[in-house]
Amino acid sequence: MPTDWLSQVNFDDQGLVPVIAQDKDSGRVLMMAWMNRRALTETVDSGMAVYWSRSRNTLWQKGEQSGHIQRVHEVQLDCDGDVLILKVSQEGGIACHTGRQSCFFRTLDSGEWKAVDPVLKDPREIYGDD
Amino acid sequence: MPTDWLSQVNFDDQGLVPVIAQDKDSGRVLMMAWMNRRALTETVDSGMAVYWSRSRNTLWQKGEQSGHIQRVHEVQLDCDGDVLILKVSQEGGIACHTGRQSCFFRTLDSGEWKAVDPVLKDPREIYGDD
Repeated sequence: MPTDWLSQVNFDDQGLVPVIAQDKDSGRVLMMAWMNRRALTETVDSGMAVYWSRSRNTLWQKGEQSGHIQRVHEVQLDCDGDVLILKVSQEGGIACHTGRQSCFFRTLDSGEWKAVDPVLKDPREIYGDD
Repeated sequence: MPTDWLSQVNFDDQGLVPVIAQDKDSGRVLMMAWMNRRALTETVDSGMAVYWSRSRNTLWQKGEQSGHIQRVHEVQLDCDGDVLILKVSQEGGIACHTGRQSCFFRTLDSGEWKAVDPVLKDPREIYGDD
């Protein structure tokens, strides 16, 4: 299989590209994270989302702690080649570390951010509380 | 109206935040762009998407040249406060400068990026060909 596709992805000067994870059925945007070349090739090879953690400076398989992995059904690239979308099915239905379906659970309402999504699972249950 | 909401948005060290524009009805992701504080306040105040162009170093009202403005129906913020979603209605149905509905018109298929979306309008018609 040609790997030429990788050379068409424009990583930024830190070697990263933003990646939008979107539920393949509902179209809901679940989260945005970052990938370097290795995260992207591992994602494509394994069919499961692997990101680059900018805070921990390490590869991070989504769900490695929580079990909430993302199975990748499609990878899309934008016109400038510098943003990706993953169409995923989200194991457990929870993408956010707060225990919600999506990280985008706040909406601007009369000048305030209001949390409009329910917590589906206590984060302490997901990650333990040690 | 309080403007405290703005202090909860975490702009990066260049003063920018990534913004995902998503069609409010279909849920299709149309594009990703960037905002600084002023772009975000102008967007919220006017109800029309205003971005920051990193290549031209200037504010850029989406559609200022093409007429393809984005009316903003909702603004969402993620758990870390460092990514926004705009739920928009896209004037003309074309968000991409290539004349397509979405900037994400390429999909990875057998190791190649394949363009799977039709060009709805010739870019020369949108922007002129001078």
